Amino acid sequence: MSLEFNIQNETDSGGRRAQLVLPHQTVETPVFMPVGTLGTVKAVPQDTLESLGAQIILGNTYHLYLRPGHEPIRRMGGLHRFISWPRAMLTDSGGFQVFSLSALRKVTEEGVRFRSHLDGSSHFFTPEHSMDVQIALGADIAMAFDECTEYPADRTRAEESLRLTLAWARRSLDYHTAHRHEVLWHGEHDSPVPKCEGPGAPATCGGADGAGAPRGSWSAWSPSARDQGHPATCGGADGAGAPRGSWSAWSPSARDQGHPVSAGKDRRSQSLFGIVQGGMYTDLRKESAERLVEMNFDGYAIGGLSVGEPRDLTLEMISEVLPLLPKDKPRYVMGVGYPDEIEQYARMGVDMMDCVLPTRAARHGLLFTSEGRLNIKGKRYAEDQGPADPACDCMVCQRYSRAYLRHLMHSGEALSATLNSIHNLAYYLGVMKRVRATCGGAATCGGADAR
Amino acid sequence: MSLEFNIQNETDSGGRRAQLVLPHQTVETPVFMPVGTLGTVKAVPQDTLESLGAQIILGNTYHLYLRPGHEPIRRMGGLHRFISWPRAMLTDSGGFQVFSLSALRKVTEEGVRFRSHLDGSSHFFTPEHSMDVQIALGADIAMAFDECTEYPADRTRAEESLRLTLAWARRSLDYHTAHRHEVLWHGEHDSPVPKCEGPGAPATCGGADGAGAPRGSWSAWSPSARDQGHPATCGGADGAGAPRGSWSAWSPSARDQGHPVSAGKDRRSQSLFGIVQGGMYTDLRKESAERLVEMNFDGYAIGGLSVGEPRDLTLEMISEVLPLLPKDKPRYVMGVGYPDEIEQYARMGVDMMDCVLPTRAARHGLLFTSEGRLNIKGKRYAEDQGPADPACDCMVCQRYSRAYLRHLMHSGEALSATLNSIHNLAYYLGVMKRVRATCGGAATCGGADAR
Repeated sequence: MSLEFNIQNETDSGGRRAQLVLPHQTVETPVFMPVGTLGTVKAVPQDTLESLGAQIILGNTYHLYLRPGHEPIRRMGGLHRFISWPRAMLTDSGGFQVFSLSALRKVTEEGVRFRSHLDGSSHFFTPEHSMDVQIALGADIAMAFDECTEYPADRTRAEESLRLTLAWARRSLDYHTAHRHEVLWHGEHDSPVPKCEGPGAPATCGGADGAGAPRGSWSAWSPSARDQGHPATCGGADGAGAPRGSWSAWSPSARDQGHPVSAGKDRRSQSLFGIVQGGMYTDLRKESAERLVEMNFDGYAIGGLSVGEPRDLTLEMISEVLPLLPKDKPRYVMGVGYPDEIEQYARMGVDMMDCVLPTRAARHGLLFTSEGRLNIKGKRYAEDQGPADPACDCMVCQRYSRAYLRHLMHSGEALSATLNSIHNLAYYLGVMKRVRATCGGAATCGGADAR
Repeated sequence: MSLEFNIQNETDSGGRRAQLVLPHQTVETPVFMPVGTLGTVKAVPQDTLESLGAQIILGNTYHLYLRPGHEPIRRMGGLHRFISWPRAMLTDSGGFQVFSLSALRKVTEEGVRFRSHLDGSSHFFTPEHSMDVQIALGADIAMAFDECTEYPADRTRAEESLRLTLAWARRSLDYHTAHRHEVLWHGEHDSPVPKCEGPGAPATCGGADGAGAPRGSWSAWSPSARDQGHPATCGGADGAGAPRGSWSAWSPSARDQGHPVSAGKDRRSQSLFGIVQGGMYTDLRKESAERLVEMNFDGYAIGGLSVGEPRDLTLEMISEVLPLLPKDKPRYVMGVGYPDEIEQYARMGVDMMDCVLPTRAARHGLLFTSEGRLNIKGKRYAEDQGPADPACDCMVCQRYSRAYLRHLMHSGEALSATLNSIHNLAYYLGVMKRVRATCGGAATCGGADAR
């Protein structure tokens, strides 16, 4: 089975509190997914992502296909192993980047011919090829290959784009169904997993600690413990002091270990989500949603938003589409948004979101804080010894001053991107954590008392 | 008192095993000092430096003077506080950068007039001014303002340069002696420090853990513990799992805390080291050493090496000069070197070294390993799932493959610099750790059995 989606609670405004049980992680939703375009969330190491409580990250199929290539990644055991990320992963289909990044694109019924933005080489992406690449990468969730309708698009254009996207969705699904067993970790059985948190949890999880292990349970899979069974991940990022999972099964010196498994059902497989398009036309969006629901995907995304439209239109489209999607499956809005947006959408019933904004803004010195946005380059911070965000408990706000962050930014120092990104991710993940906490009880989620 | 230098052991080849007790840290020597030019060891956060066991880092006076400026840093409590580094720090005098980086330099007896490489503004550095800047920065050790003799230099040039350097050394010392009480932490009393390592050590060091503290003892100084006394650092970087010291005394929300103190004597002050110059002329080096020793500095550096000369000449100069320096004071060779060099010099009796090489090489993809140097960009590593260094236990070699490191480098990803630098620093610090371990007993240090 590819995923379980267990809804704990639903509020009056439609927000849901759920567990999304994936092969590599049980993800608490609603969830924000940091973007790790090229197999790295820019400037933030994987252990820091783990400390921040990131449960699932996104990888970009287009970029990874071009470099280093999906075949090398497949040969090396898949993307989780390649980048050493034992938790959950989602790959987009490449559709969006093909349209936004590459040059000389030619779209036909068959697919898209384009030139790489890296070296101008010619490539042809079809739904089938996109599935192939995503299967090779082996994320927990793959996305159907779609055509992301530009904004603005007139009705005719939106209709044609939708027709293509639906045809491609069908082909994506058919091919994926036929080939998903090729995912490297497909069908691996889960071993019984000790409960890693709470009373009675063992001191280590998933195996014996090697002597002198500094980091808890992952060391069960250090080179001296190579004959251990499958490592187990510890589900959930909200637990205090969650151990670091079991990436060390792939530690370069323990190459014969399998993939870590989640505490889920047997015989895992990769999920495939469909993507609702239709431009800004409610009836086209409706048609898109209905046709995709008929196809019975594992989950549904709303694509083609945050492409330049005014924010009230984004909200309108989400409001119109959400009710059309199955309640019992995860709903994912792609490419959003600002902190207040992601909170708003989560409280409406969106379960998953991704955006480059926290990390990209960070690299430009824009920090999201409980006091609003600030640009750390500002002269006013030159001698400000306070933290970026007085209400934040992230490792950056606990240790570094605004003055230092400003200095790093002005000096063009690499640490600037890292520290700013850590804070912004902590902020975003904190927003979602707060929504989850307040959506746990029916009375509190989505209302003014949610704080 | 400014420093204590307690020699535990000396080997036949001249290598010493010692503790250098500084105001902010008791440093185990021989020691390698990572370079944190602009108040950051490029691409490596301070908590990672602590995990790596870095005991003392170097800051560049020239760079910090230009940006953000020594007066702002002084106002903000000094460099330790500004960058949140509770362990030891050394600042160079600015002499080398003035000569190597700035444009339009004019040297007179008085000092050096130069134009900033940043914006062309005009500045005048004198020994007195350099002392002023270093006092404002407040490192544990400051360096005399010298003229770094270029290579090659004919005899006349080397003589003139030496004459100037000696005159400037005298002025540096006089000014520093008269003004070092202005260092912000000068004269602070040490509080009794609980032993942080070994049997009987308390679970936390230096104060009560705040509830839910994730990182051990530093949280004693979190915002909820503001009335605690001076935090204590834990001396020694070789202890397993050394806690993170007490930087949180400066956490942006605990601004009224004083500087962390080391487990040393009362009434701390900044040390000043003299720098032996003289080009590649043994007799000039001898004269330089003798004159500096007469001046009675707290320690002695050998400067003007690794400036383009062949390595056997570097070795020759070090061999000639070391015996001329007082045995009972620390000896520091500036700007060296490759891993085999630093090991060699340490075993000869050099106590301290600094070099940008591990971090700079890292950013160019050059990794130092137990199997020799490798350039991670190499095609041969494209699918190499082994660690950078099979013999290395650093966090990078434990988690990431060569293939991934290569991918990051080729993709121009920020994480590349960070991971490569972490490994190289671990390698360098590991070399020194090994030398210290084998220099502890007289029979083993410096010989073939030292491994």
